[in-house]
Amino acid sequence: MKSGVLIHPGLLEMLASSGHTDELLVCDAGYPVPAGVPTVQLAYRPGHAPFLDVLAVIVGTIHIERASIASEADTDLGIAIDDVLGLTADRIEHSSLKRRARSCRGAIRTGEYTRYANVILTVGVAF
Amino acid sequence: MKSGVLIHPGLLEMLASSGHTDELLVCDAGYPVPAGVPTVQLAYRPGHAPFLDVLAVIVGTIHIERASIASEADTDLGIAIDDVLGLTADRIEHSSLKRRARSCRGAIRTGEYTRYANVILTVGVAF
Amino acid sequence: MKSGVLIHPGLLEMLASSGHTDELLVCDAGYPVPAGVPTVQLAYRPGHAPFLDVLAVIVGTIHIERASIASEADTDLGIAIDDVLGLTADRIEHSSLKRRARSCRGAIRTGEYTRYANVILTVGVAF
Amino acid sequence: MKSGVLIHPGLLEMLASSGHTDELLVCDAGYPVPAGVPTVQLAYRPGHAPFLDVLAVIVGTIHIERASIASEADTDLGIAIDDVLGLTADRIEHSSLKRRARSCRGAIRTGEYTRYANVILTVGVAF
Amino acid sequence: MKSGVLIHPGLLEMLASSGHTDELLVCDAGYPVPAGVPTVQLAYRPGHAPFLDVLAVIVGTIHIERASIASEADTDLGIAIDDVLGLTADRIEHSSLKRRARSCRGAIRTGEYTRYANVILTVGVAF
Amino acid sequence: MKSGVLIHPGLLEMLASSGHTDELLVCDAGYPVPAGVPTVQLAYRPGHAPFLDVLAVIVGTIHIERASIASEADTDLGIAIDDVLGLTADRIEHSSLKRRARSCRGAIRTGEYTRYANVILTVGVAF
Amino acid sequence: MKSGVLIHPGLLEMLASSGHTDELLVCDAGYPVPAGVPTVQLAYRPGHAPFLDVLAVIVGTIHIERASIASEADTDLGIAIDDVLGLTADRIEHSSLKRRARSCRGAIRTGEYTRYANVILTVGVAF
Amino acid sequence: MKSGVLIHPGLLEMLASSGHTDELLVCDAGYPVPAGVPTVQLAYRPGHAPFLDVLAVIVGTIHIERASIASEADTDLGIAIDDVLGLTADRIEHSSLKRRARSCRGAIRTGEYTRYANVILTVGVAF
Amino acid sequence: MKSGVLIHPGLLEMLASSGHTDELLVCDAGYPVPAGVPTVQLAYRPGHAPFLDVLAVIVGTIHIERASIASEADTDLGIAIDDVLGLTADRIEHSSLKRRARSCRGAIRTGEYTRYANVILTVGVAF
Amino acid sequence: MKSGVLIHPGLLEMLASSGHTDELLVCDAGYPVPAGVPTVQLAYRPGHAPFLDVLAVIVGTIHIERASIASEADTDLGIAIDDVLGLTADRIEHSSLKRRARSCRGAIRTGEYTRYANVILTVGVAF
Repeated sequence: MKSGVLIHPGLLEMLASSGHTDELLVCDAGYPVPAGVPTVQLAYRPGHAPFLDVLAVIVGTIHIERASIASEADTDLGIAIDDVLGLTADRIEHSSLKRRARSCRGAIRTGEYTRYANVILTVGVAF
Repeated sequence: MKSGVLIHPGLLEMLASSGHTDELLVCDAGYPVPAGVPTVQLAYRPGHAPFLDVLAVIVGTIHIERASIASEADTDLGIAIDDVLGLTADRIEHSSLKRRARSCRGAIRTGEYTRYANVILTVGVAF
Repeated sequence: MKSGVLIHPGLLEMLASSGHTDELLVCDAGYPVPAGVPTVQLAYRPGHAPFLDVLAVIVGTIHIERASIASEADTDLGIAIDDVLGLTADRIEHSSLKRRARSCRGAIRTGEYTRYANVILTVGVAF
Repeated sequence: MKSGVLIHPGLLEMLASSGHTDELLVCDAGYPVPAGVPTVQLAYRPGHAPFLDVLAVIVGTIHIERASIASEADTDLGIAIDDVLGLTADRIEHSSLKRRARSCRGAIRTGEYTRYANVILTVGVAF
Repeated sequence: MKSGVLIHPGLLEMLASSGHTDELLVCDAGYPVPAGVPTVQLAYRPGHAPFLDVLAVIVGTIHIERASIASEADTDLGIAIDDVLGLTADRIEHSSLKRRARSCRGAIRTGEYTRYANVILTVGVAF
Repeated sequence: MKSGVLIHPGLLEMLASSGHTDELLVCDAGYPVPAGVPTVQLAYRPGHAPFLDVLAVIVGTIHIERASIASEADTDLGIAIDDVLGLTADRIEHSSLKRRARSCRGAIRTGEYTRYANVILTVGVAF
Repeated sequence: MKSGVLIHPGLLEMLASSGHTDELLVCDAGYPVPAGVPTVQLAYRPGHAPFLDVLAVIVGTIHIERASIASEADTDLGIAIDDVLGLTADRIEHSSLKRRARSCRGAIRTGEYTRYANVILTVGVAF
Repeated sequence: MKSGVLIHPGLLEMLASSGHTDELLVCDAGYPVPAGVPTVQLAYRPGHAPFLDVLAVIVGTIHIERASIASEADTDLGIAIDDVLGLTADRIEHSSLKRRARSCRGAIRTGEYTRYANVILTVGVAF
Repeated sequence: MKSGVLIHPGLLEMLASSGHTDELLVCDAGYPVPAGVPTVQLAYRPGHAPFLDVLAVIVGTIHIERASIASEADTDLGIAIDDVLGLTADRIEHSSLKRRARSCRGAIRTGEYTRYANVILTVGVAF
Repeated sequence: MKSGVLIHPGLLEMLASSGHTDELLVCDAGYPVPAGVPTVQLAYRPGHAPFLDVLAVIVGTIHIERASIASEADTDLGIAIDDVLGLTADRIEHSSLKRRARSCRGAIRTGEYTRYANVILTVGVAF
C-alpha cells in the first residue's frame, strides 16, 4: 500500500494534476460546491474528517504559494489556518471567495461544522 | 445540508441500495478491495478516518443482522467491534472473509492502520 | 437496509451533495423540469407520490432556510406547504420560480396533480 | 404531459422493452436486488410507494401471463396480490424466487415494509 | 408486453419526461434535427413510419395545448394535422419553426417524404 | 439526406457492421430480445412498423445466405417470409430459434402483432 | 454484409442522420477538423483514402443541394470536384470555409495530400 | 500533421498498444469481426481500402514475428501476402483462424472483396 | 510492437488527430494545463520525462510550422528549444502563451523542473 | 504542484488504490499487457521511461513484500532489480509470470528495450 502522509487515491490524483496558479477549494461540510467542479468527498459525519486535519495533509503534499479565506471567519480559525499553511492567508469577502470557487480545479469537502472553514489554495511550483 | 449522523453522499447511496442479506465490507487502509466491488474511499491519512468511528456511523444508519470478523484479529479489537455493533460478530478465518468479500455489494475503505480491522456486515431488515 | 425517514438512494445522494444556499426544486407531475437539472423521479401514477408527503420527507432530512412558491398557488396549498416546511415560504411569480428552477442543483418530481404544487427550497446549514 | 395510469419515464421504458416470457421483479423495500439487474427506485419512505399500489399500475400497463410469490408470504398478502393480478400466482419457496430474481430483466423496488411482499411477473403477449 | 397505443420504449420515456410548456418536434425524414436534441428515430424507409400515423400515436398518449406548423405547408397537410391534433395549429414561418426546434426537449423523426410535414407540440397538463 | 431504400441511421450502422455468417434477428413486438443484444427499436404501435415491410427493407440492403423461422409459424406467414427473402427459410423449433437469438449480433424489433413473426438471418457475402 | 456503394458503418450512420441544409465537411489529411465535430477517419496513408474517391461514394449516397470549396484551390481540383458532385461548387475564401466548418454536423477526413482538397456539402432533400 | 507511412489516429493507437505475442486481425470486408474485439474501420466501398495496401502500411509500422492465413486462400493471394509480410505465413484452416480471431487484441477491417483475404499477425518485439 | 521513434499510444493518437494550424502545448511539470484540454501525462518524477527529450520525439513525428515560447524563458533554454525544433520559436509574453494554451488541441505534460520550459507548437502540413 | 518523488496523477491513483497482496506489473515496452488490466503508459521512446528508474520511483512510494521476475532474465538485470527493490525477487518461469499478470490490479508500461525487464510486485502493508 502507499506510504506517506496522503493515502486517498482520488485526492492524490487531483493534487498531482494541478499546476502553478491553479486553485483548489478545501471547504466545510455546508459549503455549496459549484456544480461541475470535481469534488473529493471526505465528509462522513458532523465534524469529520476535520478541516484543519485534511488541510494539513494537503499542505504536506503540494506546494502552495498563496491562500485566501473569508474575512468573516472567526479570528482563531484564521490563525489556525495560517498556522497549518505556514503562511498568512489573504482575507477576502466570503462573496469573492464564492465567486472564485466556481473556477477552482477541484474541491475537497471535509466534514467540518464550523462557519467559514473554507480556504482557496493557489498552487505553487517546486522549481 | 443533510442533517443526521451520516453526511457522505456516496455512502448514503450505497447503504440505501442494499437489502436484506446483502453484505458490505468495512475495512482497514491496507485491505485489497476486490476489483469490481464499488468502493467508498474514506482513507486520507494513516489512521484516519478511523475504522471504529466509521463503523459506528454505519451502524447508526442501517439495520445489521450479522457480522463477521477475522479470528486472527486482536481480542481487544474484536471486543471493540462487537461493542460498536451491539452484537457479537462471527469469528471466521481471514481467508474465508477475503473469499466472501469478493461478492460484497460494496466496500468502505477507512484509513485504519490496525491489522485485521475488517468486518463484513450482513444487512438486516426493518420489518 | 437503511433506517430512518428517507430510503431512496438517489434522493439521499442528491440531498447530501447540496450545501448552504443551493436550491432544490420539488415539483408536481406536470412541471417542465429544465434539461440538465439532475432529477429524481418519484411520479408513478396521477397523484402519487403525493407532493406534500415527499416534501415532508425532505424537510425531515435536510436543513432549509428559505422556500419559495408561486403566488398563483391556491391559498390552501400555500398554507399546507408552509405547515410542512415549518416556515412561511416566499410568494413569488410563477415565471420567476421557473427562471430560478433552471439553476437548481436538483429536482424531485412527484406525481402530484395539483396546479402550482412546486416549491424551491434554499438549503440551510447545520452549524 | 403523459396521460394514463403510468407516468414514470424509466418504468415505462422498462416495461415497453420487455417481451413474452421475460420476468420482472416487483419487491418490498428490503429485498436485496441482485447487482446488474436494472432497477426502478420507487421507495422513498417506509411503506411508500406501497407494493400493491405499484403492482396495480404495472398490471394496468402490461400483459402478464404468470406470477410467482413466496409460499412463506402471509395468506392475506397472497390473496391481495392475486386480487390485483387478476390471476392466482404460483406459490414457490422464497429461495427459488431469489434464484430466479437474478435473471430478471428488471426490478421495481417499492417502499413496502411487509415481509415477502415480492412478486416475479412473467410477461405475457398481446396477440 | 406493454399494452396500449404506444409501445416504443424510448418514445414513452421521452413523452413521460416532458412537462407543461415543454416543446416536442415531430418531423419528416429530411428535417435537420438540431445537434444536441434527443431524437427518437422512426424513419426506416421513404414514407415510413408515416408522419400522421406517428402523430396520432403521440396525440393519444400526451396532453397537448398548442401546436405550430409552417405556414408554407400545403393546405391539405395543415388540415390533416389539425384533424389528428383535434385543435388548430398555429401557422408560423418555417424559419421561426426551425429556430424554436433548437430548444425542443425532444424530436421524433418519422420517415415522411412530404415537404413541411413538421409540427412543434407544446405539451399540456392533465390537471 | 440519404437516398435509397433504408434511411435509419442505427439500422444502417448495424447492418454494415455485420459480416459473413453473423446472425441478425428480426422479430415481432412481443419477442423477448435477449439482454445484451444491440437492438434497433422500430415498434411504435400495434402492428407497426410491420414485420414483412421491415424485412423487405433489410433484404434490399444486405446479402443473406440463409434464414431460419419457427416451425410453429403459420404456413402463410412462412410462405410470405420466404417470398420476401427470395429463398426458403429453414423451419426449426421456436425453442432453438430462441437459443440462437442469444448470440445474434443485433436485433430489429418491429411492431408486428403476429405470433412467430420472427426470423434469424445468416448474413451472406458479396464476393 | 451490406450491399451497395458505401459500406462504412460510421459514415452511413452519419449520412443518414443528416437532414436538409445540414452541412458536412469532406477534407484532406491536413485539415484541422474542429474539436467537437464528429469525425469519420478514412486517412490511413499519404494520399489514401483519396479525396475524390471518397467524395464520389458520398455523392452516390446522399442528396446534395449545394457545395462550397476554397477559391484558393487549384483550378483543376475545382473542376474535378464539380465533376464528381455533378454541380458547380461555390468558390469561397478558405477562411470562410474554415469558419463554417466549425458548425458542420460531421467531418470525413480522407488521406488526400493535396492543398485545398476540402468541400462543405449542404445536404439536400429527396422530396 | 503526422509524418510517416501511417496517419490514422485509431490504428496508431491500436498498434502502439500491442505487445510481443499479441495478435491482430487484418481482414476483408465480409469477415465477421467477433463482438468485443476493438475494430478500426477502413472499409468504405467495395475493394477499398485494399487489403494488401493496408497490410503494407501495418507491416511498415510494427514488428511481426509470425502470421497465419487460411489454407483455403487462393495460392496467388497467399504469395502476395507473404510478399508484403516479408515472411511465409502459416497456412491453417479457416475455422482455426476464426477461433483465434476471437481473442485478437484488435481488428482492422479493410474494404477488400476477395475471399480469404484475412491474416492474423503475431506481434514481434524490437529488442 | 510499434517500431520508430514514438511508441506512446495516446500521444500517437493525439498527434495524428491534429491538422494544419492546430496548436499543441508541450509543458513542464508545473504548468497549469487548462481544464478540458486533452492531456498526455509523461511526468513521473522531478525532471523526467525531460522536456527537450519529449520535444525531440514530437519533432520527429509531426510537421511543425511555427512555435512559441515565453520571452521570460532563460536564453539557453530558448536556444536549446530552437535547436531541437530546427526553427526559431517566437518569443511571446508568458501571459499570452497561457491565453493561447486554453484553445490548444492537446497538451503533453513532461516532468521537467525548469521554469518556462513550455512551447506551443503550430502544426504544419506535409504537402 | 505535488511534491515528492512521484508526480504522475494516474500512477498515484493506481498505487493508492492497491492493498496488501494485490499485484502490480511493471514491464518493458514489448510486454503484451493483458486486455482489461488498467495500464499507466510511460513508454514514449525506445528505452524511455527506463524500467529501473520507474521501478525506483514505485519502490519509493509503496510498501512491497514480495516480487517476482522471470528466471530467463539476464543475471545482471536480476541483480539490478533486486538492488532497486531492496529484496531478492523470486525467479519464476516467464510463462508463470505471464499467467499471473492476467490478474494484476494494474500495469505500468515503461519504454525499456531489454528482454525480460518485467517484475510483478506483491503489495505490502504499512502496519
